[in-house]
Amino acid sequence: MEFEEKTLSRKEIYQGPIFKLVQDQVELPEGKGTAQRDLIFHNGAVCVLAVTDEQKLILVKQYRKAIEAISYEIPAGKLEVGENTDPIAAALRELEEETAYTGKLELLYDFYSAIGFCNEKLKLYRASDLTKVENPRPQDEDETLEVLEVSLEEAKKLIQAGHICDAKTIMAVQYWELQKK
Amino acid sequence: MEFEEKTLSRKEIYQGPIFKLVQDQVELPEGKGTAQRDLIFHNGAVCVLAVTDEQKLILVKQYRKAIEAISYEIPAGKLEVGENTDPIAAALRELEEETAYTGKLELLYDFYSAIGFCNEKLKLYRASDLTKVENPRPQDEDETLEVLEVSLEEAKKLIQAGHICDAKTIMAVQYWELQKK
Repeated sequence: MEFEEKTLSRKEIYQGPIFKLVQDQVELPEGKGTAQRDLIFHNGAVCVLAVTDEQKLILVKQYRKAIEAISYEIPAGKLEVGENTDPIAAALRELEEETAYTGKLELLYDFYSAIGFCNEKLKLYRASDLTKVENPRPQDEDETLEVLEVSLEEAKKLIQAGHICDAKTIMAVQYWELQKK
Repeated sequence: MEFEEKTLSRKEIYQGPIFKLVQDQVELPEGKGTAQRDLIFHNGAVCVLAVTDEQKLILVKQYRKAIEAISYEIPAGKLEVGENTDPIAAALRELEEETAYTGKLELLYDFYSAIGFCNEKLKLYRASDLTKVENPRPQDEDETLEVLEVSLEEAKKLIQAGHICDAKTIMAVQYWELQKK
């Protein structure tokens, strides 16, 4: 069976600071004709499962304009253009900026957040040997964050209550629970 | 601490069949000035963790234009406009169209796929009492799918090899493994 959709034409509709929107016309496989694919191109991001020696998960409370609500998430950040070559440095920077911690990172998963229309790839790292940074890099100017530390049981309750409501954080909590079992 | 970002203005940049792109100007909290937020509004989607009596996970192999590659995913589909009121019906429809199975559904998670810039909310269901539908609804015209059934060990190998590479499917496999432990 053929699967590939060949690009017949591409129109760039919008180029913004975070992502680009393009509209592709594609030739469907198996002689099924043509179709339109609206796609979001994103530079990728990193996120960190950071658990302290006291077995507490480090979360960041923040406002998310896309959902007009506050959510509790693991530390994360976009890759800057050109930073794809050193995602570990980016993850350590986000961890330090958002939580004032640093540590050693190990890649757990490399995954697409919304594969149906978007190529944003997230790298989820696990941080170990966490230590506090004395003079951490400051938070981004347009971010307002509050850091908190929760137990596994508390994290699961935050999921049930909908305060943890994003894929990467639920995935990180599940990974943590699997490691503990 | 204040978190909310108040919308000062909104410009609609693109309205397509799958999502809308808007550009908001927001007032940051704590007197930090203003910022631009590029946002994708999406109608939401459903996906299904379906495990057969033989303890095999049902996956769908398909081409994803956003990443120009084939991926193996749990059955999933977008909510049509107006369908937000009955996501279970939508999930059963997608399960039947893509895999020819039907069953009973239980909601596991309700989560945002890419919370940083997109409001797409996914509902992940677990299907039980799976049975084959004799004359299943046909697949969508613009989709080319192949169904396969894999064990937990095979699913974990597909993740390691990068063939399973999207958040919802990794999350579903993790959930399945947690239930088995």
